[in-house]
Amino acid sequence: MKLGRLNHIGVATPSIAASIAHYRDVMGATYITEPFDLPEQGVRVCFIDTPTMSGMDGTQIELIEPLAPDTPVGKWLENKPYGGQHHLCFEVPDIEIARGEFEALGKRILGPTRIGAHGTPIFFLHPKDMEGILTEIMETPKGEGH
Amino acid sequence: MKLGRLNHIGVATPSIAASIAHYRDVMGATYITEPFDLPEQGVRVCFIDTPTMSGMDGTQIELIEPLAPDTPVGKWLENKPYGGQHHLCFEVPDIEIARGEFEALGKRILGPTRIGAHGTPIFFLHPKDMEGILTEIMETPKGEGH
Repeated sequence: MKLGRLNHIGVATPSIAASIAHYRDVMGATYITEPFDLPEQGVRVCFIDTPTMSGMDGTQIELIEPLAPDTPVGKWLENKPYGGQHHLCFEVPDIEIARGEFEALGKRILGPTRIGAHGTPIFFLHPKDMEGILTEIMETPKGEGH
Repeated sequence: MKLGRLNHIGVATPSIAASIAHYRDVMGATYITEPFDLPEQGVRVCFIDTPTMSGMDGTQIELIEPLAPDTPVGKWLENKPYGGQHHLCFEVPDIEIARGEFEALGKRILGPTRIGAHGTPIFFLHPKDMEGILTEIMETPKGEGH
């Protein structure tokens, strides 16, 4: 495959409201979406734009708050009470081709391909096969191709 | 302050050579710099460009290999044998103004301002004051202002 755009950095937090205040008041972020629930994944998320020289093409920060303690992100936070860096998400032009390529390389895929926070198909790869990083692969939204 | 460009994501690895092979052969990265040592920080680093729609303005991945086990990154890897996400680095136009702003907010700064891997002044902020994320603040290289 060819390396795609680094769409976002997933950051887990015990409180999405407190994290929004941090990114707005301490870091000076101005473009922060309204949080919304992804009940199938047990999380509430929102996105923060980071600026670039060319405009709004920057990697986003995805804030992720678990909807309950007994969810994957809830468990992840048990030993990280302040939150922290949770995953990286790279774009691909075609999710099925990418899935086949990672499978052919013997990389463990975590569950089925599903619809992610941006409304396009995604899947996750096991961190032990990906240099210690939980890696999300996401199909580029239509009309935003490179 | 105003949120600056997400310059890079720091990724620690036990082997920068193995990580370069991973990003090249598995992830399909094509722009990877030659690794170089930063002896003062006890690390060897290189940078991987990620693409954007507009060209080469993407957030970079900084691979970081400790030069010895008894360095900060060496110790960080003790419980993370596969490596993982180590820090985030945001740009600011003026490092001294940014340092003063974080100090005024009571954020703990880790050591003196020093010259980072891009040749401009940097400092690090304590993860417990930054939503669990070791955060690097870096002055934008001259000629690359926004």
